[in-house]
Amino acid sequence: MPVITLLTDFGTEDEYVGVMKGVILSIAPGVPLVDLSHRIPPQDVRRAAFLLANAVPYFPPDTVHLAVVDPGVGTERRPLAVRTPTGTFVGPDNGLFSWVLAEVPEWTAVEIRELAYRLPRVSSTFHGRDIFAPAAAHLAAGVPLEGLGPRVEDPVVLPPPRLEIRAGVLEGEVLYADRFGNLVTSIGRFRWEGGDLRLAPAFRPASGERTVGAAAARVVLAGAELRGIRRTYGDVPVGELLALVGSSGFLEIAVRQGSAAAVLGAAPGTPVTVWV
Amino acid sequence: MPVITLLTDFGTEDEYVGVMKGVILSIAPGVPLVDLSHRIPPQDVRRAAFLLANAVPYFPPDTVHLAVVDPGVGTERRPLAVRTPTGTFVGPDNGLFSWVLAEVPEWTAVEIRELAYRLPRVSSTFHGRDIFAPAAAHLAAGVPLEGLGPRVEDPVVLPPPRLEIRAGVLEGEVLYADRFGNLVTSIGRFRWEGGDLRLAPAFRPASGERTVGAAAARVVLAGAELRGIRRTYGDVPVGELLALVGSSGFLEIAVRQGSAAAVLGAAPGTPVTVWV
Amino acid sequence: MPVITLLTDFGTEDEYVGVMKGVILSIAPGVPLVDLSHRIPPQDVRRAAFLLANAVPYFPPDTVHLAVVDPGVGTERRPLAVRTPTGTFVGPDNGLFSWVLAEVPEWTAVEIRELAYRLPRVSSTFHGRDIFAPAAAHLAAGVPLEGLGPRVEDPVVLPPPRLEIRAGVLEGEVLYADRFGNLVTSIGRFRWEGGDLRLAPAFRPASGERTVGAAAARVVLAGAELRGIRRTYGDVPVGELLALVGSSGFLEIAVRQGSAAAVLGAAPGTPVTVWV
Repeated sequence: MPVITLLTDFGTEDEYVGVMKGVILSIAPGVPLVDLSHRIPPQDVRRAAFLLANAVPYFPPDTVHLAVVDPGVGTERRPLAVRTPTGTFVGPDNGLFSWVLAEVPEWTAVEIRELAYRLPRVSSTFHGRDIFAPAAAHLAAGVPLEGLGPRVEDPVVLPPPRLEIRAGVLEGEVLYADRFGNLVTSIGRFRWEGGDLRLAPAFRPASGERTVGAAAARVVLAGAELRGIRRTYGDVPVGELLALVGSSGFLEIAVRQGSAAAVLGAAPGTPVTVWV
Repeated sequence: MPVITLLTDFGTEDEYVGVMKGVILSIAPGVPLVDLSHRIPPQDVRRAAFLLANAVPYFPPDTVHLAVVDPGVGTERRPLAVRTPTGTFVGPDNGLFSWVLAEVPEWTAVEIRELAYRLPRVSSTFHGRDIFAPAAAHLAAGVPLEGLGPRVEDPVVLPPPRLEIRAGVLEGEVLYADRFGNLVTSIGRFRWEGGDLRLAPAFRPASGERTVGAAAARVVLAGAELRGIRRTYGDVPVGELLALVGSSGFLEIAVRQGSAAAVLGAAPGTPVTVWV
Repeated sequence: MPVITLLTDFGTEDEYVGVMKGVILSIAPGVPLVDLSHRIPPQDVRRAAFLLANAVPYFPPDTVHLAVVDPGVGTERRPLAVRTPTGTFVGPDNGLFSWVLAEVPEWTAVEIRELAYRLPRVSSTFHGRDIFAPAAAHLAAGVPLEGLGPRVEDPVVLPPPRLEIRAGVLEGEVLYADRFGNLVTSIGRFRWEGGDLRLAPAFRPASGERTVGAAAARVVLAGAELRGIRRTYGDVPVGELLALVGSSGFLEIAVRQGSAAAVLGAAPGTPVTVWV
């Protein structure tokens, strides 16, 4: 049976996530469940969309990804299920899946409307439990996507994270600090090719690639200037700042065995410039 | 094989929850495990009892719910296993299951005494590992409830959360703030019937139902007065306070895309009055 | 199929843990996954090593324990897989497994080198995803340990937590405060034998045992002196300090239904003396 992943801003204090799992296991007994995160900042759809796009490539393509960051619960926003070559997605139509969809050649989306695949009573405040968890479970149990409701051709699409490319300059911003205080930026995705970096702008399939010299690059943010983009933390002494390519291909600013967020006082939205 | 859920105040920093799962999987290999919460405030039996009562209806009735919030560990309090039509429960006899039991027509409880269903060494500080996890695993693996020990007819019962109903007034209190800062109150359970609300006092099966006019109700707490009980967050502008019925049927005070706990400075125990 | 446990300092905000699980389930579909903790303080290898040594005895011996606290990621430190009679271990060669290894009669370690058991692209920053998770999954799926790479005879070994034993005195230190504020110390392992305690110094197999009188012992730390080592929290009134033997056999300082860390202002490294 395929895996179902869960991604929410519900936290883990309350019963909300457990209840969704109870609903799923009542419909699809034995389905393996994996938590992606439940600590998305409340209502931060962009953070969830970014996390999802980075996680999906590592799951089997028959995985059902259930994502509920849903500031519009109870309003007219549509409940969505989307099938792509990299996974199946269930959640509110608010842009959560935009960056996953930007990286696949084709997808099919439907609005979840079929009453047989919801809980008998649908609340106005917890569609994760009443609509999305049941839909994900039924999909994992083999219900065809088209059985859930009519086609949707125009799901909500978020603009991709900021990345401006001009002659000799890449401009972006800090997206967030991860658990270690590493500042994850919108500048990527990079991959190493020998001693150089190839930049394939994320979530912009038509924008082409270019080469960036890793050693010559200068990264400027929050009043600091870092020379070179490094391969790993061990390339600088303990406690020192460095720029490197994070595990999903985005430029990160880190302190070896420390917190760049604390050292630089940078936060989401802080501009980042790379002179190349 | 049935699901086992886990509910504790152990947090997720330490090895305690993982160790309980190791014990369970040593006895019942392959049993699906679901975390309800491990972030119950330390020793807060009432919060755990409330969470459990709200989560149980969404799990299959053959689920074993293992709950360990156990300020009396190592004292004479009894270890308990209880079977009901909605689930089987394992944990200390301190009232954890009172509100689950108040909502079922019948139950059978036993004291867990049989040495064959404990770990060989029982500590005085971690019965979750030594007594409760093994009992839950053996129950999930098919050991009959009666095999664990003698009948118990008088488990500890907590008084239900405060709810006083007088002519034109409902009085209760804030129970806690959830992850979003929504203030969950003791006033419920409500369910919508057309434009009105039906109130069936929770955990008091004999108390009968009554109708409450949603639009005319006025909710007073912490110096604020809210007019009407709404259906969903989207019924007020972003940033505004509202009263609504939460996903488990209890009155909640929320701020749309914000934190009512922060805005009102309310905390557990803050009185809440509804003029109806 | 055997269980895989996960122990990291990755936190649960970001996608890192979920991604490792995706990798595992792509290689070993259906393998049961158990989180030991993801809230090890960043880069705190000793804390992780201690937690692991306390958790392992409660898991089936065919369990694969995947531990990634890896300040040296991207440097020359070896990736390791170790088989012991109590479990199989996968992670960086930085001492994470030293205290597990100190308690088993024999073990076999290999360096993980075989390219077939890694992801196709190995980053310099996330070996948990690219090397360790695949290795753990392949081991759980039946790949023999020796298939991963060549033997290692000299894994990194950490000195055990401080414990000095002199006539009439045991000296150690606070290792950390657990979720309840209980101060876990390096003095152990103790086990009760009637009214007395047997001390078998942890992670020092050759050091022999001795008896400690529980009632006569005096525990001194942070300016406080506690008389007697108690069996359980209930042995003192609510709110009072006590010394007791924690669930893994180490001396703990606690406050009944309170936080010893808060009351004493003690922290990791605070000296603890037991006069016996």
